[in-house]
Amino acid sequence: MTKPLLLIFPKLTAEELALIEPLTTNYQLITTEAITAETPLDQIEITLGWQSELGNQLLDSPTSQLKWIQAYSAGVDYFDLKRLQEKNILLSNASGVHGIPITESVIGMLLGYYRGLFTATLDQQQRAWNKHPNLSEIANKKVLIVGTGEIGRKLAQVLSVFELEVYGINRSGYSLPNFLETYPQDEINDVLPLMDIVINILPLTSQTTHFYDAERFAYMKDGVVFINVGRGPSVDSKALYDNCLSEKIAFAGIDVFEEEPLPQTSPLWELPNLLITPHISGNTLQYNQRLLTIFANNLTSYNQVGQLSQSIVALDLGY
Amino acid sequence: MTKPLLLIFPKLTAEELALIEPLTTNYQLITTEAITAETPLDQIEITLGWQSELGNQLLDSPTSQLKWIQAYSAGVDYFDLKRLQEKNILLSNASGVHGIPITESVIGMLLGYYRGLFTATLDQQQRAWNKHPNLSEIANKKVLIVGTGEIGRKLAQVLSVFELEVYGINRSGYSLPNFLETYPQDEINDVLPLMDIVINILPLTSQTTHFYDAERFAYMKDGVVFINVGRGPSVDSKALYDNCLSEKIAFAGIDVFEEEPLPQTSPLWELPNLLITPHISGNTLQYNQRLLTIFANNLTSYNQVGQLSQSIVALDLGY
Repeated sequence: MTKPLLLIFPKLTAEELALIEPLTTNYQLITTEAITAETPLDQIEITLGWQSELGNQLLDSPTSQLKWIQAYSAGVDYFDLKRLQEKNILLSNASGVHGIPITESVIGMLLGYYRGLFTATLDQQQRAWNKHPNLSEIANKKVLIVGTGEIGRKLAQVLSVFELEVYGINRSGYSLPNFLETYPQDEINDVLPLMDIVINILPLTSQTTHFYDAERFAYMKDGVVFINVGRGPSVDSKALYDNCLSEKIAFAGIDVFEEEPLPQTSPLWELPNLLITPHISGNTLQYNQRLLTIFANNLTSYNQVGQLSQSIVALDLGY
Repeated sequence: MTKPLLLIFPKLTAEELALIEPLTTNYQLITTEAITAETPLDQIEITLGWQSELGNQLLDSPTSQLKWIQAYSAGVDYFDLKRLQEKNILLSNASGVHGIPITESVIGMLLGYYRGLFTATLDQQQRAWNKHPNLSEIANKKVLIVGTGEIGRKLAQVLSVFELEVYGINRSGYSLPNFLETYPQDEINDVLPLMDIVINILPLTSQTTHFYDAERFAYMKDGVVFINVGRGPSVDSKALYDNCLSEKIAFAGIDVFEEEPLPQTSPLWELPNLLITPHISGNTLQYNQRLLTIFANNLTSYNQVGQLSQSIVALDLGY
């Protein structure tokens, strides 16, 4: 009897493979490079990672044995979730991998702005010794973390130690450690005017598409600092541009965009008070190791009880 | 009988003055702008701040009543400390004011480097969407904080929450909260090879001038990250330049220099892996308010018992 296939999309080092190999004795491991015309794709039961072309081939086959996809990303908006639901395919994501790198990127953006480091980086190109008269601090600022999942909680923990006042937005407003107060999503406009800093980490769903539009920005404090490390389409690019240009937004740190790579013709590139980072806030040399730990935990419980143990996507909610 | 004078060097707002006025009823307040030929300089008993020209006039007068200088800076290497000691003049500094802003600046430098934010700032000028393949994190790095005064302790507290391994160097190696281990200054070369990050916050004394020379850098790990927010002359600029150029130092964040402003002709400006900030790491809009709180505390105890209560400089040690 042939073993079911476990298809591995990402390129892993021997060291990384060693993290999961002991758990995969019931499966035949196969990488995308090793696929030939003879490979029985229908026997793929698990995929680690995803690529839409090959992935859709599996989903289209009525005899496919695909039962579980371990995504390599936190956001899963590129999956046809309804279809996975219909086909009873489990989906787990990379929730748990991004807490540290995204927390570090967000705080780096905030400190780079408030402590004059980005300005100094550009001044250095002109050999200009420019002291900035109005350097401030993040300490004692009021910050709203919109989305209190794994990343938002890690961020709240670290920002609290910097002595910020940390507030949160989540679906129902349930309270959490390190947040002074949390509010339900439909009350966000009431608290936005009070916040010095607004950080978006919402997953992308139909409710969060263009969540930050001209109307939403209008609720924010004059001189607000806005960070987006969630998903690009949650922000209306035109409204973002207008509010940076008018300096309603004093500084924006934007890692994700409606179109990526951001087109060369985009006017966002030119805004002196908007920092563009190329969708890297979650990147880290530690990514594979952390993701494989999630996968290994899930594989153990999948083998034992046919269920996953962590980072499970609720297919109806989309995260 | 005329009241003794309290000379105020910095320009304070009415709001800031109000923080100390209730405590100064026994003194006549005078600002430097209000000094005329008739001002009895000998009756100045206290100065808030210092400027060397007028200051030296006071020190040179054998009949001066000067008894206490509340410096506006943390470093006091610009004072003739031996002379203050001979004349029995108390000196207090701004220790306590810089913990938050310097901690924020140092962590901003580290995150800006490790999370690719400085590179992104420059890439944006070229509209270049460059993903950096090797982004790392500060989490789990080993950091050596050289100088464990007020700033070093604050920094250790925050870096611990980022999950770094924090080590310290101080005079005798006495242990402190948030440091995994502290070592005496004369053992620094034993621990330097183990450290991913080295942060200098030493005060400038004869022992710490050119403390970081070619020999010291040679003890550091290949690819070390070096931050100087202490004093410029603690670092031999030529050795710093050479070690950045060779990439022995992967990244340097340098706020203080042997000559300030850094001359336009300095080759340091051109190093792509050295960030120059113009001696701003301690700057903050909250500076006056915090300094005046120290001064008010000291003034209270000076009035009551003739002694200072905090941020007192040991004139023999120089900090």
